[in-house]
Amino acid sequence: MLRTEAVRNILSWYEGETPGLKSNLSRLLMHGRLAGTGRVVILPVDQGFEHGPARSFAPNPTAYDPHYLYELAIESGVSGYAAPLGLLEQGADTFAGEVPLILKVNSGNSLVSSADQALTGTVEDAMRLGCIGVGFTIYPGADASYGMIEELREISHEAKSRGLISVVWSYPRGGKVTKDGETGLDIIAYAAHMAALMGATIIKVKLPSAHIDLDAAKSTYDKYPVDVNDAGARVRHIMQAAFNGKRIVVFSGGAAKNTPELLDEARAIRKGGGNGSIIGRNSFQRSKADAIDLLNQVMDIYA
Amino acid sequence: MLRTEAVRNILSWYEGETPGLKSNLSRLLMHGRLAGTGRVVILPVDQGFEHGPARSFAPNPTAYDPHYLYELAIESGVSGYAAPLGLLEQGADTFAGEVPLILKVNSGNSLVSSADQALTGTVEDAMRLGCIGVGFTIYPGADASYGMIEELREISHEAKSRGLISVVWSYPRGGKVTKDGETGLDIIAYAAHMAALMGATIIKVKLPSAHIDLDAAKSTYDKYPVDVNDAGARVRHIMQAAFNGKRIVVFSGGAAKNTPELLDEARAIRKGGGNGSIIGRNSFQRSKADAIDLLNQVMDIYA
Amino acid sequence: MLRTEAVRNILSWYEGETPGLKSNLSRLLMHGRLAGTGRVVILPVDQGFEHGPARSFAPNPTAYDPHYLYELAIESGVSGYAAPLGLLEQGADTFAGEVPLILKVNSGNSLVSSADQALTGTVEDAMRLGCIGVGFTIYPGADASYGMIEELREISHEAKSRGLISVVWSYPRGGKVTKDGETGLDIIAYAAHMAALMGATIIKVKLPSAHIDLDAAKSTYDKYPVDVNDAGARVRHIMQAAFNGKRIVVFSGGAAKNTPELLDEARAIRKGGGNGSIIGRNSFQRSKADAIDLLNQVMDIYA
Amino acid sequence: MLRTEAVRNILSWYEGETPGLKSNLSRLLMHGRLAGTGRVVILPVDQGFEHGPARSFAPNPTAYDPHYLYELAIESGVSGYAAPLGLLEQGADTFAGEVPLILKVNSGNSLVSSADQALTGTVEDAMRLGCIGVGFTIYPGADASYGMIEELREISHEAKSRGLISVVWSYPRGGKVTKDGETGLDIIAYAAHMAALMGATIIKVKLPSAHIDLDAAKSTYDKYPVDVNDAGARVRHIMQAAFNGKRIVVFSGGAAKNTPELLDEARAIRKGGGNGSIIGRNSFQRSKADAIDLLNQVMDIYA
Amino acid sequence: MLRTEAVRNILSWYEGETPGLKSNLSRLLMHGRLAGTGRVVILPVDQGFEHGPARSFAPNPTAYDPHYLYELAIESGVSGYAAPLGLLEQGADTFAGEVPLILKVNSGNSLVSSADQALTGTVEDAMRLGCIGVGFTIYPGADASYGMIEELREISHEAKSRGLISVVWSYPRGGKVTKDGETGLDIIAYAAHMAALMGATIIKVKLPSAHIDLDAAKSTYDKYPVDVNDAGARVRHIMQAAFNGKRIVVFSGGAAKNTPELLDEARAIRKGGGNGSIIGRNSFQRSKADAIDLLNQVMDIYA
Repeated sequence: MLRTEAVRNILSWYEGETPGLKSNLSRLLMHGRLAGTGRVVILPVDQGFEHGPARSFAPNPTAYDPHYLYELAIESGVSGYAAPLGLLEQGADTFAGEVPLILKVNSGNSLVSSADQALTGTVEDAMRLGCIGVGFTIYPGADASYGMIEELREISHEAKSRGLISVVWSYPRGGKVTKDGETGLDIIAYAAHMAALMGATIIKVKLPSAHIDLDAAKSTYDKYPVDVNDAGARVRHIMQAAFNGKRIVVFSGGAAKNTPELLDEARAIRKGGGNGSIIGRNSFQRSKADAIDLLNQVMDIYA
Repeated sequence: MLRTEAVRNILSWYEGETPGLKSNLSRLLMHGRLAGTGRVVILPVDQGFEHGPARSFAPNPTAYDPHYLYELAIESGVSGYAAPLGLLEQGADTFAGEVPLILKVNSGNSLVSSADQALTGTVEDAMRLGCIGVGFTIYPGADASYGMIEELREISHEAKSRGLISVVWSYPRGGKVTKDGETGLDIIAYAAHMAALMGATIIKVKLPSAHIDLDAAKSTYDKYPVDVNDAGARVRHIMQAAFNGKRIVVFSGGAAKNTPELLDEARAIRKGGGNGSIIGRNSFQRSKADAIDLLNQVMDIYA
Repeated sequence: MLRTEAVRNILSWYEGETPGLKSNLSRLLMHGRLAGTGRVVILPVDQGFEHGPARSFAPNPTAYDPHYLYELAIESGVSGYAAPLGLLEQGADTFAGEVPLILKVNSGNSLVSSADQALTGTVEDAMRLGCIGVGFTIYPGADASYGMIEELREISHEAKSRGLISVVWSYPRGGKVTKDGETGLDIIAYAAHMAALMGATIIKVKLPSAHIDLDAAKSTYDKYPVDVNDAGARVRHIMQAAFNGKRIVVFSGGAAKNTPELLDEARAIRKGGGNGSIIGRNSFQRSKADAIDLLNQVMDIYA
Repeated sequence: MLRTEAVRNILSWYEGETPGLKSNLSRLLMHGRLAGTGRVVILPVDQGFEHGPARSFAPNPTAYDPHYLYELAIESGVSGYAAPLGLLEQGADTFAGEVPLILKVNSGNSLVSSADQALTGTVEDAMRLGCIGVGFTIYPGADASYGMIEELREISHEAKSRGLISVVWSYPRGGKVTKDGETGLDIIAYAAHMAALMGATIIKVKLPSAHIDLDAAKSTYDKYPVDVNDAGARVRHIMQAAFNGKRIVVFSGGAAKNTPELLDEARAIRKGGGNGSIIGRNSFQRSKADAIDLLNQVMDIYA
Repeated sequence: MLRTEAVRNILSWYEGETPGLKSNLSRLLMHGRLAGTGRVVILPVDQGFEHGPARSFAPNPTAYDPHYLYELAIESGVSGYAAPLGLLEQGADTFAGEVPLILKVNSGNSLVSSADQALTGTVEDAMRLGCIGVGFTIYPGADASYGMIEELREISHEAKSRGLISVVWSYPRGGKVTKDGETGLDIIAYAAHMAALMGATIIKVKLPSAHIDLDAAKSTYDKYPVDVNDAGARVRHIMQAAFNGKRIVVFSGGAAKNTPELLDEARAIRKGGGNGSIIGRNSFQRSKADAIDLLNQVMDIYA
């Protein structure tokens, strides 16, 4: 299939990036069931690092095997698969070329108290494994956040010099951000905007709530209101913050919930002009058949 | 489309190579009309460098425009497009991700007397432009040949370390090789074998004639005869020399000839177990409609 | 002896790694009394650094001499010997090629209060001494843990680029981990999983207890119970966390205990699908005859 | 099997070399049917590069497949297998760790008139493929010989710094060396001595004839005669030139001959204190059964 | 004078080190009055950096002149002279080749509160000045200790790659070490062992007291007692910790005391198998005649 107008249009936003980066972005946008639509669904599996193996894989123990995760990504027809080094290595040869890969190059874990992550992969690893790009988490607000942002700058620079895209998980926490604020509308908009300003090719944020968190921002939202009770309007506001929709933004729902809620979220994302979903635990913690069924229902909404 | 058994089998030959290289090779093998067959047709446009622009493009002047060559590669559904730096640059952004690209990183020209080539591109260029690999010419036999082989070693090492494939144009000339010998069966077999020993991912040689050139080799061919009058048998012998068929070999016919001859060549290549054709002047010197028609007839044979 | 099916199967898990790394891993798996079984017993002697010389060697003073430790490793027929720089240097020439060596490249000591280690060896040292790989300790949970993980990433990358394996001692402590939690089932599973995600070739963890430590994990273990009172079931859970058994995991018992207990541990490791034991103080603190006798009893269980 | 006294004695000659290099040399000396004897038989397959594929493999076409050559090396129980890059790559993963490998890092070919070789592999390739060392050809006497010797110095230095052994093919030709002189007793002694002076770990020369070639050397051989009609005495003279037997020297017979002649050569090499044979065409140009039979007869002589 | 058996034996311990390092170590062991005995007395002058000039040199003001210190080292016949950069530079030309020099490459001073040192010299300086090696201080236990250990690893690696020996001043302080513990028997044994594990060529520790400092070690010393009231037995325990006496260990007495005490210490060191003394303030704070007299009395004990 040749590139569609929707994909050509998206690539046109990334002006100044190399043809190499655009080729890799094109591979993501032209793969799987959503190929050519300009929308994407990505399977991320970094929960083993973040929450430990049992909390991640005990509900569906076949998922302890990295090959299962590749199979899920390939058979479901999602746009891409993102994971830390070891998970990608165990399968990269067997499934070479079958699904666009994103190497998550930093990771946190639940044993440490502080909000930070360690570099656990390199741009060279990404090239060795045939990835289209790298993923990186920042925690805007955290004590460690300026250091994380500077690491992102280095990784991003190196990745782009090799034609790899950067996917930025922008997850505010700490500092002036309250617990509720972590999904607050103003905070998520801010998170998306910072990632865009950092040159992210794709931005990953949590789906925003109606909450406005920063006191300093409240008067602005009073004066220029967003219809905070409409999930689609909330998504549209996040897309505004992402260069008026000229950056790809994908949303995660976070903790597991039921299927109707997930599908409602996807409808809101589509309605608000978002580019898609990143669905981890809700897919790999189910049986393969159920997971593929769910992912297909979500992709039907985006198609 | 997922990888086929034919493609999985070919990738298995490249043991010890990185998943990155296999992903890029897979992209070539899974693109275009021959996707999944294990056979490829590649459009090469290095004749402008080799023979000058008018000899190359005057028969079909729209081909002076690099965008035309991209369009020809994309619309015809060939497996990939190989060209020097400038040709790829002029179109790499417009057509990013639409056809697998191979950057030809050395080039000769007709103004110099000696058989040699100059490095005209780099592995970094290939990454910047989103190429799946690099192409390199060696002239075994030429005075400059040992130097060319050493350059190939360096380029190949660097390309592989970034997951790019290497395509080696192995074209003997000079030294003990006579003019007729340049397409002699023993010489082409030797050329293919040397490229394989150098670690080439894909080997490009001329279609061999029935001629045996080296005196030292004649007694061997007398004792262990090849049916030199059968073009398929000649191709099969070349495939033997390419690790008993465990390396991808594509053949060029060289100087322009008529369509029936070209199709006969493709049938012989298929019969002998070759992996396909590299068709330059015979395509881009015709009108686009005629070229696409010819390429499709060739690909029908390989499909 | 040629490689067995058990060893071929294990090597197949390490897809995408170089033939050089697989050759070195093969050397470990094909050495000593357990050659070809897919199971290993490794002699580690880093206690001198960790606990001081007298606590380590006073019970068997001949072990103060590094040559003794080489002799013990060679004569007992264990799979490999792991130690810091000085111990390996004092014997590397005399015993060159007689036992697979692993250079422990970071070390802590008991004089410092903080949970951290210093780099005390390099990948170049490992090559100079003819080692098959390097060993590295991380303390997930400790304040220094993210720094340690990043050091591991660099060491591991450099080691693999030279074909050396990485053995990761993953020993959680500090942060949210309680003292009992250091051997808690959930914590050890997490520790093994993190090492696997970091690309460890071989993972070394402590044998887990029945304790579940992290509050956040308790509901998962309630819902998807492990038979925590069966040591074999506990080991099996750790192997799940190690890519469903597709990474080599060896267990240490920690503080000295009696022989029947040690043998019971080995039986539980075998029953749970673990790959073997790492036995330090329980071997080198006994007389050579007693140590060899014990190691042979353990290896009999694994054979 | 632990190292024997014969092997310990040989390793003691290489004083000042790193334990890493001695470990790799030990691997060669402790592998296969001759393990522990201090003698070696090596399978070299560089004739495809040197003479072309048909002259090399047509007599036994299964040998066109690189896996066949690995199988021959492994099943016959020879000490090691030496070949150029492509041949080692196609099998390095499948047969990782099953036979000591030597990467031939320079190669000549029969299409070029001049006596020279091109670098076709690197020390990094050797590490990536798990080789114990690198092989390098010099042509003392040739116009290009000083350049080749300088390349050897660089390769050797880099190889040793990573613990890899160097095997030097020392083949005089050109300059003051006549055609008969290429196997002349004085010339072969000179060739072996130069390789020893260059720091070669293992020296490969042709079996010397009774001919004395250099005029300047004749008076010396008149005054201090060698029993040139005794092949064993000729070998003993070569061993003198190799630091009085303190360097490993292996001999090649060159062009194919019959089995009794080959066995007589092996007896002479043993009688004269040589360390073994390097047997290429005489093994891989026969059927596998015949080749293994021949290699075993040769190894029986050395055992 | 040729090397003695005692020196040959010592050099044999340093297996795997280069002939260059052994040559430099041999120069120390074959110099001065103790040449060939396997024992050494070294003159160190780093007190100016550590305690300031007046506290160091006011008792014997001629010692303010660096040439005086060279003269003292040469005329007394000690084995070597160790000092920071400036002291060695002022005299290195005048006295080139007259006494083995050791460049102390890190230094602390009394104006700073924290237990740490700064790098004050380089391996290149040591080569420029004709030194046989470099000296480096670590403070095991101190907050800065892991960083110091990593610096030592780098310096040591660089020094050895140039054939220079490393002399490690291993002086525990801080962390779990009490003030009395700084010379405690268990702590000094630990300090010596860590230096050996780090690859030190020569270890310098303080003469241990009868005190046992670490609670964790007390039960070991109860169970495997050392005759702590016998200074010779205490030294013998330190030598055990130094690879069972296979590393050179020299002792310092620390704060100035009277001559009979110093001589008793030397007798205890000799009795316990130590390799000698390092005597600074007790020599250079006396008149040259007195200093030479004292040093000769000490050397008489060791001779």
